[in-house]
Amino acid sequence: MVDQPLWEHIGSSFVSHYYHMFDNDRSQLGSIYIDASCLTWEGQQFQGKRAIVEKLTVSLSVYLLLCSKVTHNSQVSDCSSMRSSCIFGQQVAPQKQGFSENSDYSLPFTKIAHSITAQDHQPTPDCCILSMVVGQLKADDDPIMGFHQSFILKNINDAWVCTNDMFRLAIHNFG
Amino acid sequence: MVDQPLWEHIGSSFVSHYYHMFDNDRSQLGSIYIDASCLTWEGQQFQGKRAIVEKLTVSLSVYLLLCSKVTHNSQVSDCSSMRSSCIFGQQVAPQKQGFSENSDYSLPFTKIAHSITAQDHQPTPDCCILSMVVGQLKADDDPIMGFHQSFILKNINDAWVCTNDMFRLAIHNFG
Repeated sequence: MVDQPLWEHIGSSFVSHYYHMFDNDRSQLGSIYIDASCLTWEGQQFQGKRAIVEKLTVSLSVYLLLCSKVTHNSQVSDCSSMRSSCIFGQQVAPQKQGFSENSDYSLPFTKIAHSITAQDHQPTPDCCILSMVVGQLKADDDPIMGFHQSFILKNINDAWVCTNDMFRLAIHNFG
Repeated sequence: MVDQPLWEHIGSSFVSHYYHMFDNDRSQLGSIYIDASCLTWEGQQFQGKRAIVEKLTVSLSVYLLLCSKVTHNSQVSDCSSMRSSCIFGQQVAPQKQGFSENSDYSLPFTKIAHSITAQDHQPTPDCCILSMVVGQLKADDDPIMGFHQSFILKNINDAWVCTNDMFRLAIHNFG
């Protein structure tokens, strides 16, 4: 038996749970977030369980469909001008993008699958866990895309929740 | 003037400072770490200012040289068996790899340059800052490689230090 550190065990269990839910029923992802949780998704910031789940269930589907059309020679758009503030203790509404406030979960693809290339976990000075995932995802028959995601996990009332979540597709302006 | 949140300002300043030092004089990187800092570098864990700087200055140079020979069709090696423990309050010695305890800073390449594709920053519940960077690096005339890096920054005695650092090259087993 390998003596696996506690944070490795908790981190890898979380990662497995997260992507399993993501690939099978994203509407259940709210169970891992709290109202103080922040998601930065391709440069856009959201706070709170509801705003995050809404983003992950509706907007992400549309975005990935669009990204699958992007070649690696294309310039990644600068989303900074669309960012909203993300302050603890302040509920920030999802951004106005036509679909981000829509709770209709009908998706433009029928399935999505994540494949994890590597994952790392570390304890933080404040007894949280930092997890970083590098992997690939595939939506329906669209091209495989690399992605990068980081989480901070915190134990609150004997349960581990995700307080911070950052996601980026690995799309560079090669050349 | 855009009203930039404090964590965005601190995080982006850190990222700029970090990669400037990295590309120009890595031996100065010790100034941003403390003895409790953890680095997970391609799955290998190091703790403490000295072990981290030693890894970044000597081992990284050799590793990047080797990685530049790796094609995207190659399987990424599993470094898990080489990992050392990374526990706060316990100094972990750098791993024995022939060169990791060597303080000779002569490098197998003359220059390295990072290009940042995207960076994100968030406040954490414990008043730290989580920063995530997606970018590309180039060592001498070797092929450009994508990379992912995550940091946690903490304010200690009115100075921001890096307590957690994770680095991965974006090498997937496509296919």
